[in-house]
Amino acid sequence: MGMRKGSTVIFPKPPVAAAWAAVGGKKEGEGPLAAGFDRLYRDNLLDKTSWEQAEATLLQQAAQLCIRKGVTAPERIDLALAGDLQAQCTASGYAMRQLGLPFCGLYGACSTMAESLALAACLCSGGVGEQILAATASHFCAAERQFRTPLNYGGTRTPTAQWTATAAGCVLVRTGGAGVPIRSVTFGRIVDLGVKDINNMGAAMAPAAADTILRHLRDTGRRPGDFDRIFTGDLGRVGTDLLCELTQRQGVALENHRDCGCLLYHPEDPRVRAGGSGCGCSAAVLGAHILPALKQGEYKRVLFIATGALMSQTTFLQKESIPGVAHLVELAAPGEP
Amino acid sequence: MGMRKGSTVIFPKPPVAAAWAAVGGKKEGEGPLAAGFDRLYRDNLLDKTSWEQAEATLLQQAAQLCIRKGVTAPERIDLALAGDLQAQCTASGYAMRQLGLPFCGLYGACSTMAESLALAACLCSGGVGEQILAATASHFCAAERQFRTPLNYGGTRTPTAQWTATAAGCVLVRTGGAGVPIRSVTFGRIVDLGVKDINNMGAAMAPAAADTILRHLRDTGRRPGDFDRIFTGDLGRVGTDLLCELTQRQGVALENHRDCGCLLYHPEDPRVRAGGSGCGCSAAVLGAHILPALKQGEYKRVLFIATGALMSQTTFLQKESIPGVAHLVELAAPGEP
Repeated sequence: MGMRKGSTVIFPKPPVAAAWAAVGGKKEGEGPLAAGFDRLYRDNLLDKTSWEQAEATLLQQAAQLCIRKGVTAPERIDLALAGDLQAQCTASGYAMRQLGLPFCGLYGACSTMAESLALAACLCSGGVGEQILAATASHFCAAERQFRTPLNYGGTRTPTAQWTATAAGCVLVRTGGAGVPIRSVTFGRIVDLGVKDINNMGAAMAPAAADTILRHLRDTGRRPGDFDRIFTGDLGRVGTDLLCELTQRQGVALENHRDCGCLLYHPEDPRVRAGGSGCGCSAAVLGAHILPALKQGEYKRVLFIATGALMSQTTFLQKESIPGVAHLVELAAPGEP
Repeated sequence: MGMRKGSTVIFPKPPVAAAWAAVGGKKEGEGPLAAGFDRLYRDNLLDKTSWEQAEATLLQQAAQLCIRKGVTAPERIDLALAGDLQAQCTASGYAMRQLGLPFCGLYGACSTMAESLALAACLCSGGVGEQILAATASHFCAAERQFRTPLNYGGTRTPTAQWTATAAGCVLVRTGGAGVPIRSVTFGRIVDLGVKDINNMGAAMAPAAADTILRHLRDTGRRPGDFDRIFTGDLGRVGTDLLCELTQRQGVALENHRDCGCLLYHPEDPRVRAGGSGCGCSAAVLGAHILPALKQGEYKRVLFIATGALMSQTTFLQKESIPGVAHLVELAAPGEP
């Protein structure tokens, strides 16, 4: 059972991240976190006939690897929560068709890893299941074609543009036992300060991240220094600066902050521009770096906040601004008081 | 806390649907359930500049009416769960931007009303919130443009085609107190028998509905005759026949079955073809008919199963078949043992 404090749900008996997996593509395999991935593909098409199918396969692989690492079987998974960036979340739908699990589709754009993990923790703690999967994926080529222009156009990317990760992540949440405890979650609200530039997602999402982090700190009476790391999803370099400025204005210096979008790729890579993004970005960094480091005790307490920009190509053409959302999950090293 | 029996979650202390609202457009206002709606619009554009904005407004109105009918305020809602048919669920995102609630986006296509209601019941029963909103919307014109062809093309609709409802529904779920008890939920699995015709959604979704209903009956040891009504979401006339045939093959005669897609519009309306569909169809029938009838004691026990077809325009063009999903919620009259 969860216990509410303001808008934060605290688990007196924390559910755990019992197993996890990260799967990535070519550029992810050339990045600084390559060694942490469970599987990497040199060909981003994964022998499929479309980028969309390749993305579904990434998600399916991440889920299957995660189930195997958790020493369990698909028929013993009570529920899977997953979403992605494709219109109508078809990467998740087709991946789940192969797995045959009870499945609730989510849409939180790039916030999906934190949204699915937070909901899985709440549902496990509420007795809805013993084993619940949280998963997401993204694919650079599928996302560029859908949200911007097909790659074949060869358009120049602006300096604020981010690189959608070709990656998937999956976490197996259990009611208890061995694993990384999930101590609390804070669900995000939509925040929209009027950014309309789909090549500047970091700016669109930073206000939502600030809102969720500040609410969490207020609800729990903690300060950023109480955590070894505060990870945001995929604000990139532009969004990171804005986030720190926004929290600073509220008197909160965001110590120990790192952004998954700034960790997944080498900062000197000119094509990446402002950093990584996409549902798979924070999911891969969670599975390839954050959870392993918590398990090893390298981090003791961590906040994981994935951020999403909830626009579509239609709303962009209709000149709407981009609503942002950010969900937060508090993680701890096993045995940490 | 929920208690699992197979893939069904049974609530020993059932959460309740404490308040609800249904909002509709012109055709919904001319249908047999018109009197049950909380608000009806003659102009489907709702004075907005796009169908997409009109859909977001329907959802926002349903949520606001529901909050008012629940004699509460937005700041006392702990979480909203919502989704819709627009790519990247933008109707929900923009509606929630106006409401300022903590928000988790869902994607279950036309299964969203049951998905959101089932998750809200699980989360309430797990102590995640005292008051959680479950909501969804659809809009005929936005859906036709996105999934098929713009209305201006004047394409002829096939006999199996269904009419996407211009409607929204919202339910306020509470941990207990006055209201319609939510006794159990069964989450759906993806079922895909290879239907590829986007003008025959009923056929694509019927196998998923059969799978979920049969699992629920097996988990709980009940028969269809134990319920006053078994409502499916929006199978329409074609899908209804298929559903009954599929359960019959498993030895289950689906007594007392009604389909929301066959209830929302007059069956003699030639434009509706095989029946209503869209997220808003089952949501509106739930709010305008099912929940009021349970509250009045006209029904004692009801199963509500909303069905979703998880394809997109992209996967259709890529010649993929249509995965179906169906989530189930068991409802009872207040005070019913």
